[in-house]
Amino acid sequence: MDSNYNEIIENAYNFTKPIKDKGKLATYIPELANVNPSNFGVHMTKVDGTSFGIGDHLEKFSIQSISKVLSLALAVKFLGEDIWTRIDVEPSGTKFDSLLLLETYNGIPRNPFVNSGAIVICDILISHLENARQEFLEFVRDLSGIPDLNYSDKIADSEKATGFRNVALCNFIKSLGNIKNDPAVVLDFYFDMCSLEMNCQQLSHTFSFLANGGCKLKDGKEIITSSQAKRINALMLTCGFYDESGEFAFKVGLPGKSGVGGGIVALYPNNFTIAVWSPKLNANGNSYKGMKLLETVTTHSEMSIF
Amino acid sequence: MDSNYNEIIENAYNFTKPIKDKGKLATYIPELANVNPSNFGVHMTKVDGTSFGIGDHLEKFSIQSISKVLSLALAVKFLGEDIWTRIDVEPSGTKFDSLLLLETYNGIPRNPFVNSGAIVICDILISHLENARQEFLEFVRDLSGIPDLNYSDKIADSEKATGFRNVALCNFIKSLGNIKNDPAVVLDFYFDMCSLEMNCQQLSHTFSFLANGGCKLKDGKEIITSSQAKRINALMLTCGFYDESGEFAFKVGLPGKSGVGGGIVALYPNNFTIAVWSPKLNANGNSYKGMKLLETVTTHSEMSIF
Amino acid sequence: MDSNYNEIIENAYNFTKPIKDKGKLATYIPELANVNPSNFGVHMTKVDGTSFGIGDHLEKFSIQSISKVLSLALAVKFLGEDIWTRIDVEPSGTKFDSLLLLETYNGIPRNPFVNSGAIVICDILISHLENARQEFLEFVRDLSGIPDLNYSDKIADSEKATGFRNVALCNFIKSLGNIKNDPAVVLDFYFDMCSLEMNCQQLSHTFSFLANGGCKLKDGKEIITSSQAKRINALMLTCGFYDESGEFAFKVGLPGKSGVGGGIVALYPNNFTIAVWSPKLNANGNSYKGMKLLETVTTHSEMSIF
Amino acid sequence: MDSNYNEIIENAYNFTKPIKDKGKLATYIPELANVNPSNFGVHMTKVDGTSFGIGDHLEKFSIQSISKVLSLALAVKFLGEDIWTRIDVEPSGTKFDSLLLLETYNGIPRNPFVNSGAIVICDILISHLENARQEFLEFVRDLSGIPDLNYSDKIADSEKATGFRNVALCNFIKSLGNIKNDPAVVLDFYFDMCSLEMNCQQLSHTFSFLANGGCKLKDGKEIITSSQAKRINALMLTCGFYDESGEFAFKVGLPGKSGVGGGIVALYPNNFTIAVWSPKLNANGNSYKGMKLLETVTTHSEMSIF
Repeated sequence: MDSNYNEIIENAYNFTKPIKDKGKLATYIPELANVNPSNFGVHMTKVDGTSFGIGDHLEKFSIQSISKVLSLALAVKFLGEDIWTRIDVEPSGTKFDSLLLLETYNGIPRNPFVNSGAIVICDILISHLENARQEFLEFVRDLSGIPDLNYSDKIADSEKATGFRNVALCNFIKSLGNIKNDPAVVLDFYFDMCSLEMNCQQLSHTFSFLANGGCKLKDGKEIITSSQAKRINALMLTCGFYDESGEFAFKVGLPGKSGVGGGIVALYPNNFTIAVWSPKLNANGNSYKGMKLLETVTTHSEMSIF
Repeated sequence: MDSNYNEIIENAYNFTKPIKDKGKLATYIPELANVNPSNFGVHMTKVDGTSFGIGDHLEKFSIQSISKVLSLALAVKFLGEDIWTRIDVEPSGTKFDSLLLLETYNGIPRNPFVNSGAIVICDILISHLENARQEFLEFVRDLSGIPDLNYSDKIADSEKATGFRNVALCNFIKSLGNIKNDPAVVLDFYFDMCSLEMNCQQLSHTFSFLANGGCKLKDGKEIITSSQAKRINALMLTCGFYDESGEFAFKVGLPGKSGVGGGIVALYPNNFTIAVWSPKLNANGNSYKGMKLLETVTTHSEMSIF
Repeated sequence: MDSNYNEIIENAYNFTKPIKDKGKLATYIPELANVNPSNFGVHMTKVDGTSFGIGDHLEKFSIQSISKVLSLALAVKFLGEDIWTRIDVEPSGTKFDSLLLLETYNGIPRNPFVNSGAIVICDILISHLENARQEFLEFVRDLSGIPDLNYSDKIADSEKATGFRNVALCNFIKSLGNIKNDPAVVLDFYFDMCSLEMNCQQLSHTFSFLANGGCKLKDGKEIITSSQAKRINALMLTCGFYDESGEFAFKVGLPGKSGVGGGIVALYPNNFTIAVWSPKLNANGNSYKGMKLLETVTTHSEMSIF
Repeated sequence: MDSNYNEIIENAYNFTKPIKDKGKLATYIPELANVNPSNFGVHMTKVDGTSFGIGDHLEKFSIQSISKVLSLALAVKFLGEDIWTRIDVEPSGTKFDSLLLLETYNGIPRNPFVNSGAIVICDILISHLENARQEFLEFVRDLSGIPDLNYSDKIADSEKATGFRNVALCNFIKSLGNIKNDPAVVLDFYFDMCSLEMNCQQLSHTFSFLANGGCKLKDGKEIITSSQAKRINALMLTCGFYDESGEFAFKVGLPGKSGVGGGIVALYPNNFTIAVWSPKLNANGNSYKGMKLLETVTTHSEMSIF
């Protein structure tokens, strides 16, 4: 990695670190409230294999919704274009867990990154894989290179005990005919899927196949086709940040995905993947400092797809 | 322009031309129904100044909503970031002329490309320019290099006589406090602004400053800053095609903007601008064959920002 | 009128008068803000012709939306059941000037007492009467027995200058095909219709035909049939108080209609009509003290239809 | 019962019976589809204790949502006005199982007769009664005079297996903080409550306390106060028929409540209670022939509260 990139990251980190954090810890999953709110780290992985990190970039956190990109990739890999009869590819224009648009669109979620869409992806995987829960785990182990990666029971149980709105979403879609399996089984897999933990370094490594034409950096193995990778990137750009997706495209200009654990991953196709983590969230549910850091990075460099 | 690009355009044109056109002529502006529905043309302008066109690319048509990008550029040029207190930058998730979200968001349109947003931009220009109607015309004359470009009274009058929903939108926003001038004056300018006519060649030339870091191709004059150009490109990607913006990003992967006259302009930053025209529209109000052609172009090439 | 009724009214008036008025003057029609906010009067007219009033019951005020019942009666009188293809008879579940449900129901207003419904009634009257503005005035003159009753230009002009939301509503319905005349002409009539002024005595006399099987008290002349009167009463009960109609039925239990001028008229079929006036409005746009007084009246008596 | 009333009922029955039934059997609870669709019966109970029935008025059917009035009465009896902090009293303006308005009103159902409202009533009863399921059953046994009345496991199980939308509703309200108990427990009680079976005679007897000032006909025992009975009657009038409540008030003019089993109960305060049953439902989920019969009854008589 050339020193220029390292410098940009380091400068953006140092510039953002002292900013007063106006965000708030996620409270709707009780277990997430136990995190040290001042954690802050960032890690960039270039497609040439070099990488650079700073701050708490080696500390693990719950990646939450970021894993929705990985379950989508797995569904696309095995089922191709067929999945788009069950989910649309449009920004929702509303909160991540809204039921409103489901009612309007007869149970077809607006995109795979709102909760309803990710739940339908889980249903699809359960229908088409022998053991979706295990196969998804193997898939992420392979991408991340972490052989002992596991679901976090503590996080998953915490969400299972309080995730009434996701229960509502899944049963509502079921009532509209777009969930094929038992809602309880689908939800179990969904909560597990969101419970994965990684640090910034691992996260940027894991996502680098999307910056690399669908192929793993390490061994060049094709995970999904180049065209499929482009489409997932397009979806991250238009739908990756819930009701703030337009703002992220406008200010940062990179495809990305956030999670309520405070993580964000973003990528510049054919260039790099960057993962940032800071647990306190802005009003739209995205990491306050993570957004600031990425905005600083692309404002002070020419690293935007636009 | 290297022959490779010419070939891609020509092939895509020849591939798309014989496809059965499932679109329908716009009917809500009566004058638009008088157009020959089989017109079909495309023109690409590269940032190196070379260009290539085929089909009815020299025939003029009503660019309609495509001009919303130009009025936004003028507002950004003169007023900078201030305009974003009056308009948001998020995809709407609904039809282009929906009143629903205005009610939810207290008169702040979701983005400058839905009708309500473009109407607010007109209001802003009227407040801040001596003679907005004339200055906007001069601005587009300069960008397009067409010194005698003029508003089409025939088109504007046709829309004024039937544009009840836009009258509703403007008065509704006024009632919510986000229109400062007389609604009738704002609407007059809005209908004029949408009445401009160009051919594909002129349209691709006009928009090339957005593919060229904000600078005119011909003389390098900075129209807006590079950062402002990037942000307008980001907005076109997330919001340029109404309720089909996600689909366009997903399948074409370029920032673009469509109009109900059947025109679409799209651009690849630092590479090219492409304008296509075919009057019959799909269910979302975007040119049926225009969408097909652009999808073919980016599928058969590597020309996507993702 | 037996003294018992007089006593109930007088007691309710004296009980309600000293209550702290938590309401606020209507501000959206500037002229309405010039009223003395402490005015408070009530008048009851029995079907036996006797009547009783107290407080400012002889002071004129702008009856505003209360006149929507009278324009509906005129439309029903001349056109009968035909009007119900253009308007529904369901409570709206939303604010009186909401555009949302119009979008859902393709321009068919939910009922004739929300603004959109009253605007469609105006359109119907214009289509079917020689001179709707004059004929409506004659109709109300006859009902009220006030031969020199006139539209108030001051009130109508005040609303015309600021009624952007009603302009929006009318043009929106026009765009959906349910306004047949020029929106400007329809709105002129609508604003005039809402500008009528009466005092409580006159108002309770005017509405007494609805408590009297459709016939004028004075001379027994049939204005509308008994069945039509019942249906208008049913509509007042389910839809007469916008988003507070259920509450009024629940607490007062009489058909009624309110106006933003602070007037309320209510009636007990075959018994009496009661008009109350106090200008300050609660959060739902209904007279704060007027509601309190009527609640007191029916709580302390057995005068409810339930 | 005077013969006049008997005649009106008999005539209305004979007039309605041969009308082509445009309704359809409810399908969303599989067990309800096993009913003979041509069943048709009606029974009237006067407050003087006389009664009259015709057709299949002694055949039992699933009263479904009609029982929501009884659970409301029980809640009102024990908790009085306190329950109205948890539920509103406004017509919903939308379908009976809509989630939309819950989102708008923060988990406060619009009224106790939409599914969400009845679910909250169940939650309230569970919180305040020792054994809500049993006490509700005793309450209805007492009202109906059927000592061996029981929940129908067949019906309840059928709905439990398919009632995904009610599961969604309950969990959604829980997520908004307006369900205090375990959603699974609340839903169990809700499905049981809706599974009661009665015939028209029993149903009209059971509801006669609401036409009799809150007191049982048989022994005059006060079940709820006269004022409480009036308020429940008002609620039935404004909210008893989902999105067709206005229509029922308009055409029939009596407080009433329908169920998807095809039953309707309506009442004229201080006069009579009438129960009608015909299983095929109109597009709004109300008995097609039941509505027709009641409309005929009140059109051919003067039996309306308006």
